[in-house]
Amino acid sequence: MGEFDFIRRYLQCQAEAPGVVLGIGDDAALLRPRAGFDWALSSDMLLAGRHFFADDDAADVAHKVLAVNLSDMAAMGAAPRWALLSAALPRLDEDWLGRFCTRLFALAAEYGVALIGGDTTRGDYVFNLTIAGELPAGQGLRRSGAQPGDDIWLSGRVGLAAAGLRQRQGCLKLPAATAAECVAALRRPCPRVALGQALLGVASAALDVSDGVLQDLGHVLRASGVGATVWAEAVPTLPALRTLPPSVWQPLLLAGGDDYELLFTAPPARRAAVAAAGERLGIALSRIGAITAAGVPADAVVHCVDASGRSVILPRTGYDHFD
Amino acid sequence: MGEFDFIRRYLQCQAEAPGVVLGIGDDAALLRPRAGFDWALSSDMLLAGRHFFADDDAADVAHKVLAVNLSDMAAMGAAPRWALLSAALPRLDEDWLGRFCTRLFALAAEYGVALIGGDTTRGDYVFNLTIAGELPAGQGLRRSGAQPGDDIWLSGRVGLAAAGLRQRQGCLKLPAATAAECVAALRRPCPRVALGQALLGVASAALDVSDGVLQDLGHVLRASGVGATVWAEAVPTLPALRTLPPSVWQPLLLAGGDDYELLFTAPPARRAAVAAAGERLGIALSRIGAITAAGVPADAVVHCVDASGRSVILPRTGYDHFD
Repeated sequence: MGEFDFIRRYLQCQAEAPGVVLGIGDDAALLRPRAGFDWALSSDMLLAGRHFFADDDAADVAHKVLAVNLSDMAAMGAAPRWALLSAALPRLDEDWLGRFCTRLFALAAEYGVALIGGDTTRGDYVFNLTIAGELPAGQGLRRSGAQPGDDIWLSGRVGLAAAGLRQRQGCLKLPAATAAECVAALRRPCPRVALGQALLGVASAALDVSDGVLQDLGHVLRASGVGATVWAEAVPTLPALRTLPPSVWQPLLLAGGDDYELLFTAPPARRAAVAAAGERLGIALSRIGAITAAGVPADAVVHCVDASGRSVILPRTGYDHFD
Repeated sequence: MGEFDFIRRYLQCQAEAPGVVLGIGDDAALLRPRAGFDWALSSDMLLAGRHFFADDDAADVAHKVLAVNLSDMAAMGAAPRWALLSAALPRLDEDWLGRFCTRLFALAAEYGVALIGGDTTRGDYVFNLTIAGELPAGQGLRRSGAQPGDDIWLSGRVGLAAAGLRQRQGCLKLPAATAAECVAALRRPCPRVALGQALLGVASAALDVSDGVLQDLGHVLRASGVGATVWAEAVPTLPALRTLPPSVWQPLLLAGGDDYELLFTAPPARRAAVAAAGERLGIALSRIGAITAAGVPADAVVHCVDASGRSVILPRTGYDHFD
């Protein structure tokens, strides 16, 4: 099977999709924008050995490649619509590609995404997905709108993926059921796309938590020119993880990475609207802190406290891809 | 220098650009489409050791990463506007990054492209650029419009980059001046963006030649359900390359790859319009053959002939990324 057979067989099978004038198979895809909508565009690159294990199941890799990009759309409040996938593959292994494409297209269909283009080449596994979505013009959820006094909210539960990674690396020994749940969270993150859209007009700022709660919150604070207090005990997680020593659970929950939950701020006056959105979508939403005036030094700071009001100091606040 | 310093220092410096509501620094960029325009989107992934040499100058790598994507916009007749760049880098080397970014932003400015997003991670050099452009709604140049009787046109000159690659690999020994010109063509391809836009309403089909003239022409033929005759001697190149034995120049010109010229078809009635576009832009345009009714077997075939009408048979017609 050559490159062009592969494209014809696995990729060019996409049905017609809204807004797509011309899909895979030309030099570029052609799309027709709709009046009154802005477009959100973002890209994530995933490498074997860094973002997934080379021996991970192809279906899990496909899930993660798309899910982390869907999560970026969620963070803007955009409806994901179109994707371009570039893939470096060591070989065209039909079994591997079949499992990869089956999961990719299933997840894409679930979220209303059409694959419209991309690139393939030979190399060690690298995937780059670019996603484009739509949202009502001018309403995108930015990192820059947080105000002193705003609540800080977090969807779902965090720390599971980080615990799953440490379990797989052999640095953590969790009970079997907990381990399974954590490894599943690492492999198959659940992007909060519907929640992001429900927060349009409600949240004052939002992002998705990919590199650790405190570090990602720091991006909101810097963009908004504010500070924050976070209550470590209010950060939602699996109960089994909270029973670990604080020196273990605090880094997992607060600086873990790969959570793909939404962290957002909203004025206290919008608490009922936030709660209603969570209930309607069946997603737990936890109030984990409050936005404060910018700290000193001028650069925004997160003050994280435990149940007795003591500062929580972590060895590092999140993930740096060049650390 | 960490990941976020790098982004702030090298990437977030982009000035405001048309259509950009929100640039680098959030979960996604926000763009505002204009009424009456379609969008062209495409992605190309370049790996060290496959698309460039790991010891290539950073400026040349940056040029190629953007130029090959600009070439896809040219092939659709689109005006390139926005780009997302994902980069895996072995380290954050300020000298390397400085040279890379300087060339990237210079070329982007030359073609009116704003960098609006992307991703960075640690790994062996991999670059993926996604480009988005605009064109008048419904007018995109496709591969599927070629009609029997149409002329086949090729811009500029081909075979130089392939000769440059073979020179660098030590499989070809060219005179110094010729070698320099060929290696320059390999390193700094010149995307035919203005030509692509000038061909809107003139060309019946178009693509950019990246994998070899005959193979890429084959894509047009399959998409259009037609055949073609190509006159090998009419394919434009550097005179010095034509003096090589036919067994050398024919594969270079017809199946070489990395040319990034535009191959397009147009009815003979549009010859004056084609010539006028070439003259206005100062780009040589060569008529290299004609579209015929589909051959037998049903799959489209290229019949390539030499000056005496004999068939030119090549060991392979182009580049397959998984060969």
